Amino acid sequence: MNRGIIRYVIGSVIKIEALLLMAPFLTSLFYHEKEGFSYLIVALACLVTGSLLTIVKPQDHVFYLKEGCISTATSWIVLSLFGAIPFVLTGEIPNYINALFETISGFTTTGASILHDVEALSHCSLLWRSFTHWIGGMGVLVFLLAIIPMSGGGSINLMRAESPGPSVGKLAPKMKTTAGILYTIYISMTLLEFAILAFARMPIFDAVCTAFGTAGTGGYGIKNASIGCYSVLIQWIVTIFMILFGVNFNAFYYILMKEIKKAFAMEEVRTYFAVILVATGAITLNILKQCSGFFDALTKSAFQVGSIITTTGFSTDNFDQWPSFSKTILVILMFLGACAGSTGGGIKVSRFIIFFKAFFKEANSYIHPKSVKQITIDKKALEHDVLRSTNVFLNVYILIFVCSVLLVSVDNLDMQTNFTAVVATFNNIGPGLAEVGPTENFDKFSSLSKIVLMIDMLAGRLELFPIIILFHPEIWKEFLDHREARRKKLRKKLEEAKEKDML
Amino acid sequence: MNRGIIRYVIGSVIKIEALLLMAPFLTSLFYHEKEGFSYLIVALACLVTGSLLTIVKPQDHVFYLKEGCISTATSWIVLSLFGAIPFVLTGEIPNYINALFETISGFTTTGASILHDVEALSHCSLLWRSFTHWIGGMGVLVFLLAIIPMSGGGSINLMRAESPGPSVGKLAPKMKTTAGILYTIYISMTLLEFAILAFARMPIFDAVCTAFGTAGTGGYGIKNASIGCYSVLIQWIVTIFMILFGVNFNAFYYILMKEIKKAFAMEEVRTYFAVILVATGAITLNILKQCSGFFDALTKSAFQVGSIITTTGFSTDNFDQWPSFSKTILVILMFLGACAGSTGGGIKVSRFIIFFKAFFKEANSYIHPKSVKQITIDKKALEHDVLRSTNVFLNVYILIFVCSVLLVSVDNLDMQTNFTAVVATFNNIGPGLAEVGPTENFDKFSSLSKIVLMIDMLAGRLELFPIIILFHPEIWKEFLDHREARRKKLRKKLEEAKEKDML
Repeated sequence: MNRGIIRYVIGSVIKIEALLLMAPFLTSLFYHEKEGFSYLIVALACLVTGSLLTIVKPQDHVFYLKEGCISTATSWIVLSLFGAIPFVLTGEIPNYINALFETISGFTTTGASILHDVEALSHCSLLWRSFTHWIGGMGVLVFLLAIIPMSGGGSINLMRAESPGPSVGKLAPKMKTTAGILYTIYISMTLLEFAILAFARMPIFDAVCTAFGTAGTGGYGIKNASIGCYSVLIQWIVTIFMILFGVNFNAFYYILMKEIKKAFAMEEVRTYFAVILVATGAITLNILKQCSGFFDALTKSAFQVGSIITTTGFSTDNFDQWPSFSKTILVILMFLGACAGSTGGGIKVSRFIIFFKAFFKEANSYIHPKSVKQITIDKKALEHDVLRSTNVFLNVYILIFVCSVLLVSVDNLDMQTNFTAVVATFNNIGPGLAEVGPTENFDKFSSLSKIVLMIDMLAGRLELFPIIILFHPEIWKEFLDHREARRKKLRKKLEEAKEKDML
Repeated sequence: MNRGIIRYVIGSVIKIEALLLMAPFLTSLFYHEKEGFSYLIVALACLVTGSLLTIVKPQDHVFYLKEGCISTATSWIVLSLFGAIPFVLTGEIPNYINALFETISGFTTTGASILHDVEALSHCSLLWRSFTHWIGGMGVLVFLLAIIPMSGGGSINLMRAESPGPSVGKLAPKMKTTAGILYTIYISMTLLEFAILAFARMPIFDAVCTAFGTAGTGGYGIKNASIGCYSVLIQWIVTIFMILFGVNFNAFYYILMKEIKKAFAMEEVRTYFAVILVATGAITLNILKQCSGFFDALTKSAFQVGSIITTTGFSTDNFDQWPSFSKTILVILMFLGACAGSTGGGIKVSRFIIFFKAFFKEANSYIHPKSVKQITIDKKALEHDVLRSTNVFLNVYILIFVCSVLLVSVDNLDMQTNFTAVVATFNNIGPGLAEVGPTENFDKFSSLSKIVLMIDMLAGRLELFPIIILFHPEIWKEFLDHREARRKKLRKKLEEAKEKDML
């Protein structure tokens, strides 16, 4: 393992966080809030730590899948460890575990909160919460670009160039260009949403935070009623942007390149919109009785479907009070998630397309045992490795899911709460049902459960494997062996020094 | 498609049912119950229908996977359609949909009931309910032997000879011998249980019904309190036999052949017992507070773990009142199910072993990208096709599961009820939690939901595909085309006859 480069990457990430922490600090200056100094202190601490870690440049530039996974997972964790400190320093979230939960929930674009009263927070802390979503969303794009392709056929394949299936595609010959394009799309769309929201008379601060939360498909609101306290126009604007941020970014690239046909031909994107339409229609009819008319039902339904399928997690209504049929649809959408190659979480639409196609192929083989049809996606044959890794993904997903529900159940909350708490965190959504419904929060869990849910958020966000690797005994063995070796070296040096003294 | 042979198989099955229906009739003679005549009438109807269907012997003896699936699925359905009639005729279950639910639940060895008061039934009807479990369990053994191997590498592979993985193995060179061995084991173990129960002073009638319910891993009780109203000794006897009937029958064969080492070396069997031990231990500690001492907790816990993992569904305690942790363990066991090659349902232990091994292989590939370790089970390499079909099984399982929960949710019962109702029927267990808990019943669902749950029971029992094939548009097209062709033929004949008359 190339420890030098991992250290260097983490150091650089911490230095970047120092810069990012200036955003809440500047906000505090604007609003004359003393809480801002906590952010400044942590920014300085980040700067020092980051600089120390990056003094020695790594000699070896080898950076394989293992290093990629470890540095990605560790970066997300370290970002959160530092990012949580200001909440404790300001006294707004005195318990560090809670503060860490809130920050991991932010960076993983989950949006599950432990706060009972969001509106009690200072402006700078509110901005920091929403800003973590936006950073997290950006981070996911880097991750999709840089780490996933390394795993090649052997693993996740969410973004393999040139291969069909769940992929962001090869947008441009060079990774840097691709990253540039993705960021441009991400930033422009955020700015656009902010502008339109401001134009629709949303207060500027609210518009900034809401745009951050939408872009990262995060879902931290700055009001206790989430988006429910804004006008219907604003609700629709947010609905549309949530849905747009859940689209595979490839489609936007095609549109930019004026290859609109190609964008609309993407099976994943078509399926995604079809699911949204059907789900919205079904829920609208189902909640009609509880609403004041068809348009009200449509507004609420479209918002919630958009919010849940993209794993954003904003809410305009307490959907925990909806009929079972609507709630079941929402829970299914929680698992489904958005398109691959977007900032959304969940299992991803493209994986489900693969599962469906594999199923139909199998069913056909019972009737025509000798047929050898291949599974195709976007008219290209699906590589065997992609199918295999998608299946392994599902196995691992279920495994982690079941273990998490079991561990969380020790708290003895009701089963629907436990189940949807894991669904909502593992798929990076935010609110679940029952005692973690949209009007509730996650503070009721024990610290152990909170830690389990934090790991779920990280695992869900990073496509499972980078987090699993951190628990792999070999990685720990390597880490401990290295420490032992260093100690031995040190001891030897000491002994040598002593001997020299003796002579 | 060879329709002749399918007709012949179904006809034979109906004739056998005529014979089986004599059991409740004879019981009624013994207890002087007038309800017995309903069974006699239906037996005669079966005899007539069966004989009519088998008058013409099929010319073609070709019997491929498609024919196998269709005749198996149809047999199970036809058995239930006839078997439900007596309940209606006796007036004990006046609604035919309910009677059909009860019968399908019996034949699929599920044990989910729509009855509010089991004890109100006549002895002959009680016997028939329990007897359907025993027949169903036997039917599953035929099915595993005759149909599954046909699907070869292309599908389920629960019982492929010579291949490792989920398999019953090649017990003997010829299928008839194998069937003979399986039946001998099945019948002797049922007799043994009956004898021991009778020896432990269980009333003879109760011992017969309980032995039937245990052997088929069905779970229909003849008391409202299920097994809870019997002595602790009887509870332990039932516990042990439930667990034994969930073991891969291969293991018993090995023991019969005095190859005891081989039996204990089977990974699936070892895992199965390990899971039972761990789950029983965890639940015992968790419910200790609610029980009158350690032994009481152990008795209840072992019974329920055995009952649920083998998908039997007997109960001695209302486990819906247990803490969330225990309930979560039970729900996990509901999905897990028993060993492949037993009469138990669920996803099966062997499939989970495969999922786990695939996961560990993948996790290792992140650290050693170039390693090419193979997955092995019982020290044999796992064939690629087995892995693939296991994965497809999981995809289809999830698909059916989700659709069922969604359809059932229309009734607007609470989500835990909907979820566990599908879990309990699809995995052929019986009771679920909340409103379908061990002290509740399935009558509260609408007819639509009952039909969905019936399909689930059948699909779960027949390893999904035979039932899915019945819904395949091509099968319907073939069926309708054939009918159309027959009508044309008939019309032509009529016209020819007319022409002849005219001349």
